Amino acid sequence: MKKLYQDMTAQELACEKAELEKRYQEFKAKDLKLDMSRGKPGSDQLDLSSALNDVKDYTENGVDLRNYGMLDGTPACKKLFAQLMGVEPKNVIIGPNASLTLMFDYISQCFTHGAGDTPWRSLDKVKFLCPVPGYDRHFTILEYFGIEMINIDMNADGPDMDAVEEAVKDPCVKGMFCVPKYSNPQGITYSDGVVRRIAALKPAAKDFRVMWDNAYMIHDVVYPGDELLNIFDILPQYGNEDMVIEFCSTSKITFPGAGVSALAASDNNIAAIKKRLNAQTISYDKMNQHRHVEFFGDANGVMAHMKKHAAILKPKFDIVLGHLKNELEGLGIASWTDPRGGYFISLDVTEGCAKRVGELCREAGVVLTTVGATFPYGKDPKDRNIRIAPTYPPVSELDTAAELLCICVRLAAAEKLLAK
Amino acid sequence: MKKLYQDMTAQELACEKAELEKRYQEFKAKDLKLDMSRGKPGSDQLDLSSALNDVKDYTENGVDLRNYGMLDGTPACKKLFAQLMGVEPKNVIIGPNASLTLMFDYISQCFTHGAGDTPWRSLDKVKFLCPVPGYDRHFTILEYFGIEMINIDMNADGPDMDAVEEAVKDPCVKGMFCVPKYSNPQGITYSDGVVRRIAALKPAAKDFRVMWDNAYMIHDVVYPGDELLNIFDILPQYGNEDMVIEFCSTSKITFPGAGVSALAASDNNIAAIKKRLNAQTISYDKMNQHRHVEFFGDANGVMAHMKKHAAILKPKFDIVLGHLKNELEGLGIASWTDPRGGYFISLDVTEGCAKRVGELCREAGVVLTTVGATFPYGKDPKDRNIRIAPTYPPVSELDTAAELLCICVRLAAAEKLLAK
Repeated sequence: MKKLYQDMTAQELACEKAELEKRYQEFKAKDLKLDMSRGKPGSDQLDLSSALNDVKDYTENGVDLRNYGMLDGTPACKKLFAQLMGVEPKNVIIGPNASLTLMFDYISQCFTHGAGDTPWRSLDKVKFLCPVPGYDRHFTILEYFGIEMINIDMNADGPDMDAVEEAVKDPCVKGMFCVPKYSNPQGITYSDGVVRRIAALKPAAKDFRVMWDNAYMIHDVVYPGDELLNIFDILPQYGNEDMVIEFCSTSKITFPGAGVSALAASDNNIAAIKKRLNAQTISYDKMNQHRHVEFFGDANGVMAHMKKHAAILKPKFDIVLGHLKNELEGLGIASWTDPRGGYFISLDVTEGCAKRVGELCREAGVVLTTVGATFPYGKDPKDRNIRIAPTYPPVSELDTAAELLCICVRLAAAEKLLAK
Repeated sequence: MKKLYQDMTAQELACEKAELEKRYQEFKAKDLKLDMSRGKPGSDQLDLSSALNDVKDYTENGVDLRNYGMLDGTPACKKLFAQLMGVEPKNVIIGPNASLTLMFDYISQCFTHGAGDTPWRSLDKVKFLCPVPGYDRHFTILEYFGIEMINIDMNADGPDMDAVEEAVKDPCVKGMFCVPKYSNPQGITYSDGVVRRIAALKPAAKDFRVMWDNAYMIHDVVYPGDELLNIFDILPQYGNEDMVIEFCSTSKITFPGAGVSALAASDNNIAAIKKRLNAQTISYDKMNQHRHVEFFGDANGVMAHMKKHAAILKPKFDIVLGHLKNELEGLGIASWTDPRGGYFISLDVTEGCAKRVGELCREAGVVLTTVGATFPYGKDPKDRNIRIAPTYPPVSELDTAAELLCICVRLAAAEKLLAK
């Protein structure tokens, strides 16, 4: 019978700790080298897209895609991404191999040239709202440009919108990063109500921008997956067409680092981005765009392909969730998310224990995402969040790593309680 | 017997003009649609690289190149470009599909974060030296960032170094764009003396940067081609290691827009660029890097490949040069370059006539590079330079286009002299 740690006597806890230490030492003796740090697809997932490399003909309607031209992407690729994002092809720009670069570039554009009348560089202070826990690479971009990050807590249905609505009254608050579907790391999909409140925002800053990083827009692991309201459908109701830029890529559909990225935006924003793009490149890699179009055909082809990914990922999520349930449920020392898609499981351990868990795991040969990285400046104020990335390790390794992780979570909690 | 236009009587000129107009109308009647505007390879050149698409195995030393990682490029690709640029692999970063993007990014980096202590954005005025005629897309980057461009005349052996040495005494002058080999559009290769004087510059601005756009580093059309002194070999003699960033790409080696770009820089500059890169991407397209490595093997493989390009390009250059010689030599109305490599022939027509030549050509169905584009702000102060891009049209079309161009040059000159 499981007992809450906080209800245990010191003696019971010491006993528990001794037992955990024994198990921990057994793992340590195995000399493991396991990595649950990054949201990387496994090689079996990459094999699903091998046929991309079979494409030989690089013409589209008689145009030679091997040569210069087509600044914003091939018409067929624009059409494909327009279908996936639910917008018009004219509102799509096909980007380079990673949407991260598109996001960096857009912030860079706002910084040097502005999203409205005033370049952000000429302001004393620029602030951004960051739902937390969130994606470390968003924070890295903001930090690079010296933009102050403000934590916004995530609720079960998305960012705390009361806090967001309050925060945007500050004219220095120029934007917000969102991963609206299967958020990184919690796997939360924003509810219709949250999406509506975001679309309806009336920020003091007229050039407020929502970076809508829809990285996991079709990345279901469980079917049916979550449904996300298309924010572009409702923005016009609030006169906020220019407030949102959506980003996505095939990094976790075909090849990470050798995929195709895209953005969707209003006519005004597309025009401003193209002005920059025109100075920046002649065209992105149209051969790779064409490979993707030939491989998928249309949006249905992409959706069918995603089911193959899900078949590989589901067992991996299940293994981790199984260990979390078996080892941690009913102890009052941890909670976690059980997402229907995306790439991560978010684990909250006992406050003040996350760093210690990361340390214990590392010493036993299991690398987690750097603890704290899910918060701006790498600082988790409660030192409790751990991002679990179950996709990359093979099933057998994952099984071992997840069990060890649970032992470390318990051990750290026991240590903490005993030290009181 | 040919006669200088300026020695002709008004009657002789009128006669000449009438004859030219007759020929011009004959061309016009052909309803031509020919394009000599951009430095695009022909489709037969692109076919030379078709085997790039045959690569199936994307591992290097057991590392799966389809996945995330390797921020600055695959080791094999870095080694290949290091060979081509004559530097150490540690001083190479492999970039995206176009070196233009790397150049834009570096200027952007200097603007937002600086090349030394002070971001250029915080300065009242930033100026750049632009050897003219030059590459329009360099000017577009500088204009985008509001950097003032100063024309530096090109001599037969490179930029007028007296003018450069004088200009860099101004601390607002922060850099210079150079295409040191087979310059765009003149096809001039900087002499050893010029390269040494650039390496030895003592600019007032400590963060002065030379953008060494070595776009045509191995693009010989005639063998043996020109030799360019490796500026990185001599920079240390002057303590100027950090002053030069070299850029190159395979855009005109394999596929424009689907090639691989690279830069070479000092240890300090590489570290500064990587800091930005780390916020900007996880990695560029390593699968494409690997395709290039597999296709070429090593630098010798690249050089052998370039001979195949030369075999296609030589007849095209010869056709244009043949027409220029036959039609324009001895008339005193035009001069042109006869480069041993690169992608262009630069034609100087009678002062004040270049725009008119462009107009006449366009009306007869031949598109030239926008006249003026070879100068900052699109303003050729003498309205005389025309960039001829002979590579893209098939030989038969080029033959027609080049003859028409010569007729237009003569016609415009005759018009001008008669109007006096």
